[in-house]
Amino acid sequence: MDLSSFLTSLGTSFAIFVILMFLFAWLSGKPGNAVVYYPNRILKGLDPWEGGSKTRNPFAWIKEALTSTEQEVIAISGVDTAVYFVFLSTVLGILVLSSLILLPMLLPVSVTDTGDTTTNTTTSHGTFSDLDKLSIGNVQAKSPRLWAFLLGVYWVSFVTYILLWKAYKHVSDLRANALMSPDVKPEQFAVLVRDIPAVSEGPNRKDQVDSYFRAIYPETYYKSLIATDNKVVNKLWKELEGFRKKLERAEAVYATSKTTGSPGGTRPTNKTGFLGLCGAKVDSIEYYTEKINETIPKLEAEQKATLREKQLNAAIVFFTSRAAAAAAAQSLHSQMVDKWTVTDAPEPRQVLWPNLKIKFFQRQVRQYVVYIIVALTVVFYMIPITFISAFTTLDNLVKLIPFIKPVVRQSALKTVLEAFLPQLALIIFLALLPKLLFALSKAEGIPSQSHAVRSASGKYFYFTVFNVFLGVTIGGTLFSTFKEIQKNPSLEKIITLLANSLPGNATYFVTFVALKFFIGYGLELSRLVPLIIFHLKRKYLCKTEGELKAAWQPSDLGYGTRVPGDLLIITIVLCYSVIAPLIIPFGVLYFGIGWLVLRNQALKVYCPAYESYGRFWPHMQVRILAALLLYQVTMFGFFGVKKFVYAPFVIPLPILSLIFCYVCSKKFYRFFKDAALEVASHELKDIPNMEQIYKSYLPPSLSSEKVLDDDQFEDAKSNVSRTTSFA
Amino acid sequence: MDLSSFLTSLGTSFAIFVILMFLFAWLSGKPGNAVVYYPNRILKGLDPWEGGSKTRNPFAWIKEALTSTEQEVIAISGVDTAVYFVFLSTVLGILVLSSLILLPMLLPVSVTDTGDTTTNTTTSHGTFSDLDKLSIGNVQAKSPRLWAFLLGVYWVSFVTYILLWKAYKHVSDLRANALMSPDVKPEQFAVLVRDIPAVSEGPNRKDQVDSYFRAIYPETYYKSLIATDNKVVNKLWKELEGFRKKLERAEAVYATSKTTGSPGGTRPTNKTGFLGLCGAKVDSIEYYTEKINETIPKLEAEQKATLREKQLNAAIVFFTSRAAAAAAAQSLHSQMVDKWTVTDAPEPRQVLWPNLKIKFFQRQVRQYVVYIIVALTVVFYMIPITFISAFTTLDNLVKLIPFIKPVVRQSALKTVLEAFLPQLALIIFLALLPKLLFALSKAEGIPSQSHAVRSASGKYFYFTVFNVFLGVTIGGTLFSTFKEIQKNPSLEKIITLLANSLPGNATYFVTFVALKFFIGYGLELSRLVPLIIFHLKRKYLCKTEGELKAAWQPSDLGYGTRVPGDLLIITIVLCYSVIAPLIIPFGVLYFGIGWLVLRNQALKVYCPAYESYGRFWPHMQVRILAALLLYQVTMFGFFGVKKFVYAPFVIPLPILSLIFCYVCSKKFYRFFKDAALEVASHELKDIPNMEQIYKSYLPPSLSSEKVLDDDQFEDAKSNVSRTTSFA
Repeated sequence: MDLSSFLTSLGTSFAIFVILMFLFAWLSGKPGNAVVYYPNRILKGLDPWEGGSKTRNPFAWIKEALTSTEQEVIAISGVDTAVYFVFLSTVLGILVLSSLILLPMLLPVSVTDTGDTTTNTTTSHGTFSDLDKLSIGNVQAKSPRLWAFLLGVYWVSFVTYILLWKAYKHVSDLRANALMSPDVKPEQFAVLVRDIPAVSEGPNRKDQVDSYFRAIYPETYYKSLIATDNKVVNKLWKELEGFRKKLERAEAVYATSKTTGSPGGTRPTNKTGFLGLCGAKVDSIEYYTEKINETIPKLEAEQKATLREKQLNAAIVFFTSRAAAAAAAQSLHSQMVDKWTVTDAPEPRQVLWPNLKIKFFQRQVRQYVVYIIVALTVVFYMIPITFISAFTTLDNLVKLIPFIKPVVRQSALKTVLEAFLPQLALIIFLALLPKLLFALSKAEGIPSQSHAVRSASGKYFYFTVFNVFLGVTIGGTLFSTFKEIQKNPSLEKIITLLANSLPGNATYFVTFVALKFFIGYGLELSRLVPLIIFHLKRKYLCKTEGELKAAWQPSDLGYGTRVPGDLLIITIVLCYSVIAPLIIPFGVLYFGIGWLVLRNQALKVYCPAYESYGRFWPHMQVRILAALLLYQVTMFGFFGVKKFVYAPFVIPLPILSLIFCYVCSKKFYRFFKDAALEVASHELKDIPNMEQIYKSYLPPSLSSEKVLDDDQFEDAKSNVSRTTSFA
Repeated sequence: MDLSSFLTSLGTSFAIFVILMFLFAWLSGKPGNAVVYYPNRILKGLDPWEGGSKTRNPFAWIKEALTSTEQEVIAISGVDTAVYFVFLSTVLGILVLSSLILLPMLLPVSVTDTGDTTTNTTTSHGTFSDLDKLSIGNVQAKSPRLWAFLLGVYWVSFVTYILLWKAYKHVSDLRANALMSPDVKPEQFAVLVRDIPAVSEGPNRKDQVDSYFRAIYPETYYKSLIATDNKVVNKLWKELEGFRKKLERAEAVYATSKTTGSPGGTRPTNKTGFLGLCGAKVDSIEYYTEKINETIPKLEAEQKATLREKQLNAAIVFFTSRAAAAAAAQSLHSQMVDKWTVTDAPEPRQVLWPNLKIKFFQRQVRQYVVYIIVALTVVFYMIPITFISAFTTLDNLVKLIPFIKPVVRQSALKTVLEAFLPQLALIIFLALLPKLLFALSKAEGIPSQSHAVRSASGKYFYFTVFNVFLGVTIGGTLFSTFKEIQKNPSLEKIITLLANSLPGNATYFVTFVALKFFIGYGLELSRLVPLIIFHLKRKYLCKTEGELKAAWQPSDLGYGTRVPGDLLIITIVLCYSVIAPLIIPFGVLYFGIGWLVLRNQALKVYCPAYESYGRFWPHMQVRILAALLLYQVTMFGFFGVKKFVYAPFVIPLPILSLIFCYVCSKKFYRFFKDAALEVASHELKDIPNMEQIYKSYLPPSLSSEKVLDDDQFEDAKSNVSRTTSFA
């Protein structure tokens, strides 16, 4: 890639970003779009436009984002979101501090050297570019100027350590503050009990669990909720909900027809066959009313049967104090670890009920099987991606699809295509994976959604780093050196190879980063896609208020793919930070603009689907360190390639990174796994309503009033009177 | 070594053993020796001779040992001892079951082959011996007979898995029964708190600890005992005790002189100078009385000062219920892991007070430093041991020390010396190490004696296996192949080398095992050394009852060296079990006689110094598995040396061993680390006397009545009234 196509790529990206930003300013001001641009505020019952004026400065959102405090973010979007901003600002800090030293120090050192013409590491895929003059490629081998680059590696590393340490401390405090808040949160009073041993003759599961825990916690035990196999009851409940929605819709259609058409209106009809396309034509309102009346008794019977006969070997157990629940979640209860496993309870909304019944050793086996599958996926996706990046050069495309030749002949278009094509292929390709990884993570037997998201996100990170970063970097020179590696596949060789191919791909990755933030954050901010979908739905599909609300219902921030994406950028920017320091400003822009745009989105658009009180942080921290480690190892290899005799001076850094990681996880990590008792024992605002806490864990398909008064809840009630007298 | 010297060695060992056994039968019948042969029974207030008759069958002790139950062992010597017998009987079971298949299967297969003359793996250090006909050395390379040996490896492995699984379960139950016993044990009501953060102005440490724990455990917190720096007070207290003993002794001497000498008696005198050898001569009784009167006020002042001013950052915290203490010991208390570290409390008698103040990260650093030191020791002791085993052949000795030549010339003596010399050097050499390892383990910052013993024992095991087993085996052929290894030091090479040199050392290790059990257990049973020392002390040194009691005070079983010794034997026997199956009967004898002799000693002689409720077991189990793994890996190499093409069929075994180890530790281990709440919540016989529990943790140097009524105990008393009203 030469300088002109590089600049074209940047310019185009920037132009698109500016257009999208103005589009956002214009569209978000229209009242009809408020539900697309301010859904979170509307759901929280707040005024979409804080100031009240709709004719605003198009950059007002920037000011609002900048002036918002962390407490506001926590209040409106939860601790997890606040932790994500700590992550963004920490990385931003690392890059800004790095650039303050690296840019003034390394650029002059590179540009004033006479150029390294002895090796061919400087040529960007064959074409010598002006950009390379600003990179380490311009420095001669064995040159004492390499000392500056080595110092650069140290500077970046220490900046990373210091900021990560501060961030870990800060996030730990955020978590502590959230956990010691005086508000009642059901999950702080509950623990999740799995692997309950089979009941022998006599007592049922509820009695078994009750007597077990009451013996251990005579004072603080409240009651238990046995997990049940809800497959059938969920299906019936969904059917019922579906009928209710359709009835509502039919009534709305009927009401509309009264005002627009004949005064008596036309009663809507539908066909009873497959997908409403065939079968007998019936009156919708009557038909669905009848269906609802049919389903309700079925559901109620199934609810009773589920509660009585489909009890599983897991339960949610409730305590009357937070400290008791926190201590119970950390303690071994049974002599055998694979019986009565007690862990902290997830939030009610994020419990993965179907996973609860999976037994202890099955969970272990599933975990390892999933790891092996993921490892195979990570390694062997390399082959298709190498093919894709080999195919998606413009010259190849022309050869393969000759009829695009006339399009390509136009010089301006060609430059744009040349700049974007390989990256676009990559981005589209990566979009296919996260769902698979999330499903795999769920298959491990993880009991909560947030944990599954974290797990999937971790897998996705290793995938992207291995395939995008290493794949593209080595892939560029892969075919030529593949045989060489095959001959002697040692780690040393791979590092050397990586170091050799890094400089050639610097401009590639600069455009990759630029594309990601300009286009990605432009689309994010303008919400063009959700806007169009919403308007289409409103016009052609939605008939009732409920349907309209569902059409603009915001999603959550989607950490599962967002965080690995950010981490990939960090990896790329860190690894090139010393080789081609010009990449750092782009990294700063990525995280700076990202912080701004997402602050806006977090405050106004997205609704978090769960709250894990910052448990995502240790994952992010470890992966930032993994990126740093990769960077340090690569730089060691790179200095070796440059025949710099002081290259071994880099060796202490990877060791230091490992020690830093160890110390951090020793000091901070356990609090992210377990709730500290000094935090959990803080006083509550008022005495918790235990019955409400208990009910919040009932799945909606089981929580009709009729059932609650019945069956397994009868003996539970005797507990209530007992324990309330205690409290 | 040829057959005759081998048989001589065995015969001599056996003869010595028989002599020692009869000596034991004779000596133990004499009433004056009761305190040497039955000290544990006497200390427990039991009749030394159960039946009452002193003229017993010399083999009565065998019957008594065999008929004793596990419950008796637990009652008289504790759970740790019972667990040690589970260990012995498990290993015995493994060896017996192995021999049942291996001996009838492998011996005929070996002996009927025509002999492997193509390789020189069969020669025992140059001399072809008849014994080798019974080993795998007699089987030709590539022979299909090797299938039998391969099956043998599988048989031994599966027998080990099954018996270890059963034993783990059994030990877990033993531990559970001990922990749920209705008797009050102070350590079950206490936790050890370390890394208490520095107190700011205002509250003292006691208030700090009290308020911290009372907030978290409003109902179950009793009170706390702050650890103090007892160096000075301990020294004073020891001085005082010394003076008291000397006074008692002087008075006893005076009383004796009255009856034997002049009617007025001679008042004993002593010199006040260095070691009582110089200085002014004074009247002992007056002198020591005066000294005691001087020291008491000093001690009391120091006790007060210690309690008030020398408080450390650690404490023992007491709870009113076992379950509360067990849960607290497993829970994270502070947001930062390195503050308020709470673990289970060791027994009062085994707390290592000086270690308590060591801080969290310092403990981590110390641990790694100790590991590095031990690793260096393990690896580089190899050099001296190689020299020793090279020197201690008889021929070498004669060359070095010419004047022993006439002794050696006698043929019978020569054979004996040839058989014993190398082994004796080894045994003496190994006796020097355990104390160093124990000191190193204590330096890690471990808070309890039993933990330090376990840690030292683990280190000693790796040392002995690496140095004795691998060192001697490879050492024999080391000098010839050293250069070859140096050229290409791969793991593969080392395994091949080990496999190559194994058969040559078979008879060496058979005699080593025989020597260990015949002489070792003979001396153990007859207690010749303690007997002689006791009688000497009684005759020449002891003047008072206290001194006499101290002279026969029994030691504990000394797991620190005993267990690694047994484990070394297991390693040796397992590794040779298939190569030279004749070693198995010797292994059976070792553990069979060991079980008998030690059962006798545990019931009658040794007094355990601590009780860890079977925590030693996971260490032993892992190390038996390590021995099995070494065996499997070695056999893989050995089949390779025999050019057996189906050698890869051994590969599943090491993998299986690792999986087995993982599953065991997952399922059982945590209960050995933490007390399960279902166990701890069992009911007590009666309401525990909390004040007594608290006092049992006071170091003796601080527990004079005067102090208890004072100072830090004042506010503690207010607690008592508060909590007893609650209970």
